[in-house]
Amino acid sequence: MAETSHSMATQICNQIATIFTKPTTTPPPLDLLVDQISTTSAQKGRIFVYGVGREGLMLKALCMRLAHLGLSVYCVFDMTTPPIGPTDLLIASAGPGGFSTVDAICKVAKSNGALVLLLTAQPESGSSVEYATVVAHVPAQTMADDHQVGHVDESRPLLPMGSLYEGVLFVLFEMVVFKLADILGQTPEAVRARHTNLE
Amino acid sequence: MAETSHSMATQICNQIATIFTKPTTTPPPLDLLVDQISTTSAQKGRIFVYGVGREGLMLKALCMRLAHLGLSVYCVFDMTTPPIGPTDLLIASAGPGGFSTVDAICKVAKSNGALVLLLTAQPESGSSVEYATVVAHVPAQTMADDHQVGHVDESRPLLPMGSLYEGVLFVLFEMVVFKLADILGQTPEAVRARHTNLE
Amino acid sequence: MAETSHSMATQICNQIATIFTKPTTTPPPLDLLVDQISTTSAQKGRIFVYGVGREGLMLKALCMRLAHLGLSVYCVFDMTTPPIGPTDLLIASAGPGGFSTVDAICKVAKSNGALVLLLTAQPESGSSVEYATVVAHVPAQTMADDHQVGHVDESRPLLPMGSLYEGVLFVLFEMVVFKLADILGQTPEAVRARHTNLE
Amino acid sequence: MAETSHSMATQICNQIATIFTKPTTTPPPLDLLVDQISTTSAQKGRIFVYGVGREGLMLKALCMRLAHLGLSVYCVFDMTTPPIGPTDLLIASAGPGGFSTVDAICKVAKSNGALVLLLTAQPESGSSVEYATVVAHVPAQTMADDHQVGHVDESRPLLPMGSLYEGVLFVLFEMVVFKLADILGQTPEAVRARHTNLE
Repeated sequence: MAETSHSMATQICNQIATIFTKPTTTPPPLDLLVDQISTTSAQKGRIFVYGVGREGLMLKALCMRLAHLGLSVYCVFDMTTPPIGPTDLLIASAGPGGFSTVDAICKVAKSNGALVLLLTAQPESGSSVEYATVVAHVPAQTMADDHQVGHVDESRPLLPMGSLYEGVLFVLFEMVVFKLADILGQTPEAVRARHTNLE
Repeated sequence: MAETSHSMATQICNQIATIFTKPTTTPPPLDLLVDQISTTSAQKGRIFVYGVGREGLMLKALCMRLAHLGLSVYCVFDMTTPPIGPTDLLIASAGPGGFSTVDAICKVAKSNGALVLLLTAQPESGSSVEYATVVAHVPAQTMADDHQVGHVDESRPLLPMGSLYEGVLFVLFEMVVFKLADILGQTPEAVRARHTNLE
Repeated sequence: MAETSHSMATQICNQIATIFTKPTTTPPPLDLLVDQISTTSAQKGRIFVYGVGREGLMLKALCMRLAHLGLSVYCVFDMTTPPIGPTDLLIASAGPGGFSTVDAICKVAKSNGALVLLLTAQPESGSSVEYATVVAHVPAQTMADDHQVGHVDESRPLLPMGSLYEGVLFVLFEMVVFKLADILGQTPEAVRARHTNLE
Repeated sequence: MAETSHSMATQICNQIATIFTKPTTTPPPLDLLVDQISTTSAQKGRIFVYGVGREGLMLKALCMRLAHLGLSVYCVFDMTTPPIGPTDLLIASAGPGGFSTVDAICKVAKSNGALVLLLTAQPESGSSVEYATVVAHVPAQTMADDHQVGHVDESRPLLPMGSLYEGVLFVLFEMVVFKLADILGQTPEAVRARHTNLE
């Protein structure tokens, strides 16, 4: 192997970190997420997360940490998820701009008076944007533009399809959790105590 | 088709209903479930459910209805599931007597002081029984004894493997929910209002 | 308790069995499901299932048994689910006639050339019906008409919301599996050998 | 905000990348994963993944990409997951060394003759290690040692509990997928064509 483990890892991590230096057409996703989550929490509202595929997994990872912070948070499609209403927040993701079920869930949330925060790399053209109250632009490659890249340089990209966007979500959500822990006054011990033992 | 839709359905439903006339080596599962859930609720404890395969699906169906009743209930392995502790109740199922992860989850729950109610068709020999505080005998065929039956009468059983046990769980849990709604004073309207709109 | 375990169970089972005697506005769901699944299988097509809430759990229970029969079957939203195409079959359910994500998934399936078999209690008015190739009428109470019933007789129904429909799906799918095992020439031993040991 | 979005992201990405420079007590996880997966594939074996909590999410993200590569891969607890056997590979993770259900699943896999590759940060002391055929040391902080760190410098760590380990898994799995695509001769187009449209 010409390429070592470390240099590949560094390249991937740099690709992810670089996204955070790119201009966004909306206020920074970190600020939008922290503001909306802390506002919802202050108003005793509930937080819901929804995404599909690997984006959905990253939102579930966020959901677990928000539960660790003591927030009322739910994954859409869990058995215990309540109805969404006016004081609630839906955090959804549609990297390439839209997915049929993301559109559907966002539409239901908005029509029931909830605030819909949509993460997307396509803030102008995406179909899900139509149902968002707040759009958070994550300027990373997704399946909407990975094809082009592949054709331009004729080589296999290190991060295929939506992987860069998904990696950025992972890092972004860690930042969100760090900021929120501070705002909510949650000590590491309190957070840890909410981690399940049933695993 | 010699056999009509209706006669097959009637046979299946009769097979399920008949299980409820069979003697059990423990108090009736309906009474045990209703008592433990209402006691846990009265003590502000939390309820957790766990099962594998199709048994797990039936427990998830119960979990949703318990959430509709306003109880603090969680499916093991959901992102928002908290740690289990002394005032809490785990409802688990191991039709054939034991599954490695049911044993594992029951053991963790018990060692953390929770009450473990185990549903099983094998209350004497099952490996999960060892970790149960309360055993509820559901005297239906499961994968532990479906093989024998097949060999005896040489014909394909209408309900294969654990299907009879699973159908019995479905009906049993409906009965549990009906009784609990009454005990908890939950009107149909209140229950319905907790049904999610995000679907 | 005035009402014994057995009489409640019998009532529930009778309510379920009775649905199979009711007239349907479409060919019987059992015939439609068996025909479409066996045709898809014969053409080397893939089968996908999708439903929400407890209906979704019943479809997952069916999915497991179809996998046990050796069919190429997938639950929508699993990590390993492939794209749907022209020779494939989507089995979806919308008891009350429509759910936003059921509409969305059916629409995608149909626009990609797949056959969409929709189970519903509202074959005339449901929003999901629009995206179905084949509609299978399951004439059971769902959340679309449970409210009325409650108001008429002023008492709590034994099976609330969509429970009757869900119980009917459970029994219907057992019948489907029984018929298919015969058509596909699958012995109980072959079926059982496909049951996972990782649980 | 004293700390900008970019500097936080850079710190997190650097923390992740740095783990790949650390010495491991086993051969590098990248090599072990690529070797075992490609060997299993060459022998027409099946690949299974299992993990809990957020580690489990990262394994599911890997599972989706392995499916995109055309491999026979399954998430433990999916409805369509077959039994594991002698030519098969289980990839499991137990960052802090052991979880009760990871131990349970690894034990079943090993006793059925499958090869068990365990990812862990505690290759010496972990309970799951006992059931592993191959241990891959991922030298990142997990919940097994995050507590100590907190006490040493009295400040909130940027990545709490197992977040560093989970971020490392995300990056590691991207590297695995990149290497495998090359070894398996899978073009970006072929990989992309296996991405589901049902979302």
